[in-house]
Amino acid sequence: MSTLSVEVNQVDGMQLLARTGSGFAFVMDSTKDNGGLDEGPRPKEVLLTALAGCTAMDVISILKKMQEPIQRLVVKVEGETAEEHPKYVKKISLTYIAYGNVKEDNLKKAVELSQEKYCGVSATLRPDIEKHISWEIHP
Amino acid sequence: MSTLSVEVNQVDGMQLLARTGSGFAFVMDSTKDNGGLDEGPRPKEVLLTALAGCTAMDVISILKKMQEPIQRLVVKVEGETAEEHPKYVKKISLTYIAYGNVKEDNLKKAVELSQEKYCGVSATLRPDIEKHISWEIHP
Repeated sequence: MSTLSVEVNQVDGMQLLARTGSGFAFVMDSTKDNGGLDEGPRPKEVLLTALAGCTAMDVISILKKMQEPIQRLVVKVEGETAEEHPKYVKKISLTYIAYGNVKEDNLKKAVELSQEKYCGVSATLRPDIEKHISWEIHP
Repeated sequence: MSTLSVEVNQVDGMQLLARTGSGFAFVMDSTKDNGGLDEGPRPKEVLLTALAGCTAMDVISILKKMQEPIQRLVVKVEGETAEEHPKYVKKISLTYIAYGNVKEDNLKKAVELSQEKYCGVSATLRPDIEKHISWEIHP
């Protein structure tokens, strides 16, 4: 078991400064229409960023263990929210873009291992989210 | 329905630069032991930050509608992860700290409305997470 901690401090209106237990800080904010200053990402974007980051780290690590010549990985995530409250993210598309002469089978396997076994962020999300996964290789 | 988008770009090792559709960027990273440069928050911390930010914005907004004299809100979140892969966040403690002469009943109601009705991040998390919620008022 490991313990995580974060806190958010209201700065002005909806603008928040987040501080994490690992010692880093960043701003989250809302649009001006919603009482924010529009100076930082929205919480739901931050949620999808956590997912992208978690699975990207997994895939980089697994491809390295497979001795695949991964030069750089980009993960793009799109989300669609429900129409009614609570406006949760009901649909997520993940695209993995690998730069380097990586074997497609191994990229596919790394992505599946992340989504099914390793990615703690993915496993913290509700299981009924509709997920679409794709990948591209740029040798 | 609204559409959200983010992408993460591998910078070096496990260090990633995240960019969100709203036009903001921040770094995520891992420990040096895990191939990172230790220069940014970890993805699971970022997940909890999204939750803290979403519910903080709800509670600020609801207390303002109730005409409660909220001066500043702080939300602290602690998470505990599972022992085995996938190391998802299985337990979450949320503490709401309100500065200002806010009525306790209204703070409690605002927190409940956020958790049960409005917070889209909370509603995107798996429903079996053990949640502990508390609050403090500093008049």
